[in-house]
Amino acid sequence: MDRIPLAALEQGTPFADRHIGPRPNELARMLDVIGVGSLDELVDQAVPDSIRDAGEIDLPPAAAEHEALAELRELAGRNRTLTQMIGLGYYGTLTPPVIRRNVLESPAWYTAYTPYQPEISQGRLEALLNFQTMVADLTGMELANASMLDESTAAAEAMTLVRRAGRSRSARFLVDADTFPQTIAVIETRAEPLGIEVEVVDLSAGLPEGEFFGVLLSYPGASGAVRDDAALVEQAHERGAQVVVAADILALTLLRAPGEIGVDVVAGSTQRFGVPMGFGGPHAGYLAVRQGLERQLPGRLVGVSVDADGNRAYRLALQTREQHIRREKATSNICTAQVLLAIVASMYAVYHGPEGLRAIGTRAHRMAAVLAAGLRAGGVAVATEHFFDTITVDVPGRAAEVVAGARDRGINIREVSADRVSVACDETTTREHVRRLWAAFGVGGDVDALDAATADAFPAELARTSAYLTHPVFSTHRSETALLRYLRALSDKDVALDRSMIPLGSCTMKLNATAEMEPITWPAFAELHPFAPVSDAAGILRVVSDLEDWLAKVTGYDAVSLQPNAGSQGEFAGLLAIRAYHRDRGEAARNVCLIPASAHGTNAASAAMAGMRVVVVRCDDNGNVDLDHLRSTVDEHRADLACIMITYPSTHGVYEDTVREVCDLVHEAGGQVYVDGANLNALIGLARFGKFGADVSHLNLHKTFCIPHGGGGPGVGPIGVRAHLAPFLPNHPLQPTAGPATGVGPISAAPWGSASILPISWAYVRMMGAPGLKRATMTAVAAANYVAARLAAHFPVLYTGAHDRVAHECILDLRGITKATGVTVDDVAKRLADYGLHAPTMSFPVAGTLMVEPTESEDVAELDRFCDAMIAIRREIDRVGAGDWPAEDNPLHNAPHTAESIAGKWDHPYSREEAAYPTGSAGPKIWPPVRRIDGAKGDRNLVCSCPPIEAYQS
Amino acid sequence: MDRIPLAALEQGTPFADRHIGPRPNELARMLDVIGVGSLDELVDQAVPDSIRDAGEIDLPPAAAEHEALAELRELAGRNRTLTQMIGLGYYGTLTPPVIRRNVLESPAWYTAYTPYQPEISQGRLEALLNFQTMVADLTGMELANASMLDESTAAAEAMTLVRRAGRSRSARFLVDADTFPQTIAVIETRAEPLGIEVEVVDLSAGLPEGEFFGVLLSYPGASGAVRDDAALVEQAHERGAQVVVAADILALTLLRAPGEIGVDVVAGSTQRFGVPMGFGGPHAGYLAVRQGLERQLPGRLVGVSVDADGNRAYRLALQTREQHIRREKATSNICTAQVLLAIVASMYAVYHGPEGLRAIGTRAHRMAAVLAAGLRAGGVAVATEHFFDTITVDVPGRAAEVVAGARDRGINIREVSADRVSVACDETTTREHVRRLWAAFGVGGDVDALDAATADAFPAELARTSAYLTHPVFSTHRSETALLRYLRALSDKDVALDRSMIPLGSCTMKLNATAEMEPITWPAFAELHPFAPVSDAAGILRVVSDLEDWLAKVTGYDAVSLQPNAGSQGEFAGLLAIRAYHRDRGEAARNVCLIPASAHGTNAASAAMAGMRVVVVRCDDNGNVDLDHLRSTVDEHRADLACIMITYPSTHGVYEDTVREVCDLVHEAGGQVYVDGANLNALIGLARFGKFGADVSHLNLHKTFCIPHGGGGPGVGPIGVRAHLAPFLPNHPLQPTAGPATGVGPISAAPWGSASILPISWAYVRMMGAPGLKRATMTAVAAANYVAARLAAHFPVLYTGAHDRVAHECILDLRGITKATGVTVDDVAKRLADYGLHAPTMSFPVAGTLMVEPTESEDVAELDRFCDAMIAIRREIDRVGAGDWPAEDNPLHNAPHTAESIAGKWDHPYSREEAAYPTGSAGPKIWPPVRRIDGAKGDRNLVCSCPPIEAYQS
Repeated sequence: MDRIPLAALEQGTPFADRHIGPRPNELARMLDVIGVGSLDELVDQAVPDSIRDAGEIDLPPAAAEHEALAELRELAGRNRTLTQMIGLGYYGTLTPPVIRRNVLESPAWYTAYTPYQPEISQGRLEALLNFQTMVADLTGMELANASMLDESTAAAEAMTLVRRAGRSRSARFLVDADTFPQTIAVIETRAEPLGIEVEVVDLSAGLPEGEFFGVLLSYPGASGAVRDDAALVEQAHERGAQVVVAADILALTLLRAPGEIGVDVVAGSTQRFGVPMGFGGPHAGYLAVRQGLERQLPGRLVGVSVDADGNRAYRLALQTREQHIRREKATSNICTAQVLLAIVASMYAVYHGPEGLRAIGTRAHRMAAVLAAGLRAGGVAVATEHFFDTITVDVPGRAAEVVAGARDRGINIREVSADRVSVACDETTTREHVRRLWAAFGVGGDVDALDAATADAFPAELARTSAYLTHPVFSTHRSETALLRYLRALSDKDVALDRSMIPLGSCTMKLNATAEMEPITWPAFAELHPFAPVSDAAGILRVVSDLEDWLAKVTGYDAVSLQPNAGSQGEFAGLLAIRAYHRDRGEAARNVCLIPASAHGTNAASAAMAGMRVVVVRCDDNGNVDLDHLRSTVDEHRADLACIMITYPSTHGVYEDTVREVCDLVHEAGGQVYVDGANLNALIGLARFGKFGADVSHLNLHKTFCIPHGGGGPGVGPIGVRAHLAPFLPNHPLQPTAGPATGVGPISAAPWGSASILPISWAYVRMMGAPGLKRATMTAVAAANYVAARLAAHFPVLYTGAHDRVAHECILDLRGITKATGVTVDDVAKRLADYGLHAPTMSFPVAGTLMVEPTESEDVAELDRFCDAMIAIRREIDRVGAGDWPAEDNPLHNAPHTAESIAGKWDHPYSREEAAYPTGSAGPKIWPPVRRIDGAKGDRNLVCSCPPIEAYQS
Repeated sequence: MDRIPLAALEQGTPFADRHIGPRPNELARMLDVIGVGSLDELVDQAVPDSIRDAGEIDLPPAAAEHEALAELRELAGRNRTLTQMIGLGYYGTLTPPVIRRNVLESPAWYTAYTPYQPEISQGRLEALLNFQTMVADLTGMELANASMLDESTAAAEAMTLVRRAGRSRSARFLVDADTFPQTIAVIETRAEPLGIEVEVVDLSAGLPEGEFFGVLLSYPGASGAVRDDAALVEQAHERGAQVVVAADILALTLLRAPGEIGVDVVAGSTQRFGVPMGFGGPHAGYLAVRQGLERQLPGRLVGVSVDADGNRAYRLALQTREQHIRREKATSNICTAQVLLAIVASMYAVYHGPEGLRAIGTRAHRMAAVLAAGLRAGGVAVATEHFFDTITVDVPGRAAEVVAGARDRGINIREVSADRVSVACDETTTREHVRRLWAAFGVGGDVDALDAATADAFPAELARTSAYLTHPVFSTHRSETALLRYLRALSDKDVALDRSMIPLGSCTMKLNATAEMEPITWPAFAELHPFAPVSDAAGILRVVSDLEDWLAKVTGYDAVSLQPNAGSQGEFAGLLAIRAYHRDRGEAARNVCLIPASAHGTNAASAAMAGMRVVVVRCDDNGNVDLDHLRSTVDEHRADLACIMITYPSTHGVYEDTVREVCDLVHEAGGQVYVDGANLNALIGLARFGKFGADVSHLNLHKTFCIPHGGGGPGVGPIGVRAHLAPFLPNHPLQPTAGPATGVGPISAAPWGSASILPISWAYVRMMGAPGLKRATMTAVAAANYVAARLAAHFPVLYTGAHDRVAHECILDLRGITKATGVTVDDVAKRLADYGLHAPTMSFPVAGTLMVEPTESEDVAELDRFCDAMIAIRREIDRVGAGDWPAEDNPLHNAPHTAESIAGKWDHPYSREEAAYPTGSAGPKIWPPVRRIDGAKGDRNLVCSCPPIEAYQS
């Protein structure tokens, strides 16, 4: 045996070999089934030559896992995590370690998908119902969703909600001047394309003259001031407007709930319930509404229903509101929520309970009260008379000096102006902090003496008297052991990537490697305030700039913004850039957005938000853009064409070979080309958007770049643009370096969006290198073609491209089968749960089909487990078709089967073994916790918070 | 409502409130059932006044979780983790992140108990079978156990094994001089009390004259030298001796296996298979033997058997060898293994597979070869001609300078003498390290050129040609996704503390809090070499000294040694201290150890190891030490009495009120009092060993001090002593500060034992404070008395103390029930699995009973779930007794029931629901993965490595 040179040994097992599922011998078998001799041959067949890249992407060579971790540790070391008392919606909080380890760091939670298959998602649905209950209780509102992307976008959504829901014809929306500046800016970004006139006004003097459809109040204000707005609310209602309150969730433990004064919508963030600041995100925003607005509520809403055995079960409610059904008529374009963070926040409430939260709120308040008293005693003027945890202090001419003094003492506070600073207390504030702050202001004091002498700093009529979190779930898991078991029991109900492949078309459920995940809970990344001086954030900003650079190279674009914190926000940002570009060129009339019939519903919803008119372009019989129709449509809109939005490869899972022509047609007419990056996993290393004609794309870091789906979020949706659009990327009022001065304003609350999870994608690119990324793409394509080849004889594959190849996913057409046998895609999806598998995407993009995206991370054993199950299911369908089993009583119709149902009375025409062990008892059995859920029933009788305990007993 | 002062709010929720299960209202209910008005009243009744402490233990006030973590971070920052190339059995290794997160950091793995209930332990039993297969394959031996405490104690066990097993009458044991110094020292500590004469001799010159029963060779040697010992082995065998080889597990990937030259035993460590050095431990040692020695093998051995349905199932084999049955006739006193670390090492092999391990071994070897070649080229004399990864270098007069030069370049190497250094390469060694080392020696070189020019550094006849790890398990989980799912699937088979209370008498399965666990995987604790300069270890040594101090205060002793890395080692160390004390006083004849009949079997086994004669003291009808018999026995042994070993509270779960009298009696006769600390959880804050008459105790940090059981290890067994025994604590030849110069030698391989897990206990004490610890004790006592009170009407409680109170555990006597109905403790234990509960301790300390220790961490809901299950089982027993169900076909006899058995054919006289859902379907159902296992069948046909895959198909 020849000796292997040291250089070849040094690398160890490359990370790409861990990320990619199939071993070389397995890949050979797959290619054999597909009928090609090599990956290159397959790709040459599938991907149009016209768009192929010649060279390799210019990325650093792949690092090993320990090397990437060492580099990230070094970068983490460049961050400086002072005590953060800047406030403005981001506060220090203590994540209970049991929650950190068993939610944030647990693959059972973070690798789960959105709960579209509720029968195998009961754990996170219950956790989200707890979240909704928590928000509804604390805000005093009827109903809350789960969840919003951040407080500022939640406030912007509230604005459009009340506009949709209200009767006012006015386009005027009032915003109290004492509101977080980033919230005002995000609202303005959202309002402008919709023709909403935002007026920022000091409402402490009362409502201004004139009509308006809504008003946003802050409670407390950005200054920390707490005001009794009951009269304002009444007056606004009398004048036909609706009232939105941006409320601090912790303040609501002590202060009268907004719901008690009859407001219409409450928006906010649950960050300070145990979710690290993370330099801006991700956190779960919230939105709660009064009765009557529930069907206008955007985002995901969990509701209670029953399963086929009549047992209580949870599922997503009122999905007909959502953008994937209503398209440009949708209530919002938001899609991904912040499930993982909402679960953290809900568990924080479960762990602390009402009296624990009240104690935390009280402590923050008392620290602020003592701080203020000490300042006043020392002759420093505190501007906020009534407050919860934040005070604004007048320090004429010496704000910078006081801020510097605080920094010298390890504390960041906010410099409001040259003459004012503000300081926010929180759960982590100690008397030592208070003393250091006094020193920074040049005063001293005795904490206990001042505490004894100082009353609470809000009027008695604003003190909360109503109860909250009275449901037993907020009182029964109070020891760490109890919470640990509750978390385990919930996660055991869900099927995540740690137990099964999740072959979701367009969602790219690939490996979320541990080495990618570890850094995000390191304190040096977790404990940064987004508005801290950038010098404190040198490490994370290097992650940001590296990733911007690498993503630009991967996509062939010239500039990237990481600010949008979900794909929907990326779409909106991209379309805003196009809009701004046209306006900048004096072509403001260009407002038509062409969208192929096959597109994601979000595309249309985003276009509507960006003030565009959607014109649909037909698809031909092969599912591709109908070029003739595109030509005539472009001709028709030559004057007002803003852009076309396409997805590449298409949502049908095909590399359309006319994509260059499509781009050229639109460009010739003066339009811009938006390519949705949802399917980028089929392209990296093979072709680049920016090089084959696209002007702008959003990417999904939670698809292609390994950010886990978290059970339905967080997502990250950066956009890449060509140079001419770069001046119109998002920016941020509080961090000028976060975007171009000419930018469109902020899309998200935080300057760099969900910065704290960017190390995941950074690590992925760093560890794969260009060759690894390309191999991943090619393997993903091979996996989809393998599944298509194995299943084609059993289920027709709907669309294919050149040489009958699919891209990285394939659509299995069940419409003929359903017609012939009555067995539906739902039946097949639920039956897969009996086989221990998560279902593919159902009825998207074509009703009556299943779309399968296996990704590069699944090995052949798992691909075969899925294919074997599908083939076995096809045989079951045939038995139904042959009349062996009745249409209303067969293993498909009755799927999924719970263990309880197997142990109980049995009078089906098939056996218990056939129900539960259709492939024998080889692997571990995953039992669905409930049977088929009746969604419609739950929508008719909407219950979106924890049912009373008696209801469980019935 | 009166305002709460800030001072009362500041603490947040005290950690003690998270650690302790029952809330105040629950505790009140418990006390009510017990029939006392307060915890104090209960304790006053249960604990003899004569031993009660008046004051509070002098410990720092309790820190909050985040405060303790911040302090540990600060301490971690004081450690200096250079690249460790010291060797001597501890090497750099890369823990795959997926294993770190999903084994080391996963409660499902680390909170599991020893797999004494194999039906709900199949996951870790399979992982351990993989470990045994891995060790047997790599060593080329017939059979390996799982696992040993460290390499040095494994070698010492090998010495006593071959002495027991061999025919030689000689007491002489040869140890090759080129053996790790700590291994030689541990062997000497072990040999002396047993009368074994250890002779350290350079065997490269051949065997010395004279008879000897065994010989230990090192492969490679401590110097790094690799020698062909085939002839030596043959000669030793011809001379009637047996051969032990201490072998490096990674070297065996390249070198001929010891088994191929017919050695009898191979011992070693699997640390470098992914287990961090951790300043010395814990790691899994191994011991492998040739056919014929399997029944002499100490420690835990997993074997293959079948369950009641004939399906393959795993369980611990050959338990009759063990100390809890054989007492002083046992093969060894070891009890706890290193399960968690053995699983890490086995998964490292599963993940890398044979070719991956070979590549890692080859890389380490080539780095060493290139390093040596460069030194030689530069004129530096390399003393080792043949080597694997470690070289010894002659640097006359300048060893210190070279070592300092390496340290300046970030590398620790070994200073062998003033003229010699040695350097060990490993998985983490890079060409940059090689270049820096050259620089430290004052030479240079070109890595690739030298690599090309340099042959492998061991003779061709020593190159390994035999295959290893050929079982498919070592080839099928090669992607991270595949390994993640394998780990999840295995852990799902096991019932750990994250799903059920584990009410094991004497094992104290309390909460292992996340805040305690997080620091142990921080690199600053994980990557320290135990023989690094102490200046590198300032942080962890502060943890050591704090903990020694706190444990001394808690127990009332004057000095503590943390070196013993298991309770068994602590016992041995404690008895050695007594032995040395008597000898020091010229009373070497004192060698009788009194042990009550009720004692742990380990006590007797340890006494035998310490060269003592065991004399049993009877118990009276109440289970207490029979004072009259003690008096007469002490009288009889007045001249040769060494000590008494008792447990307090007793193994019967009772506070014996004569304990002071027992101590006095023994002291008056010149004996010492050893109190086994197994039940310390019933005593902290109430009484202290060192203050009521004991001279020495071992503690179990994995019982009372929250180190998790890890599925059967690691344990930590420090000893506390009064001042007169302090000079006789363990010490260490390589770290003089680790113990007194007058000490008894090392008990364990590492100076501070399993140092890297000490932060767990540190954090526990730091976060509880003295009042928290006392409250934990009192709550544990209340929990046991609550269970006793609730169950007494259904199962007689065997022993109680004053006022009919038990201590922290209670014994349920099933003997009458078994006699009347035929239902055994086994039936009840297995039936509890159907109820989703882990069984209590079976038949210890009294056959036919169950011992229940609920601990302070279980809340009332869980205590009641257990009590309700036991009461329901009692009703089932009654139905058997009444003849409703036949003795051979009832839910108890057939327990546990798997899901497969429920889904299958059913012809039992009870229903499937009665089998699987005896309490209805309220909580989540935990399905046992196999039915009752036939242990005896497996022992008759011993299979202790992974069966061939065909066997699975049959």
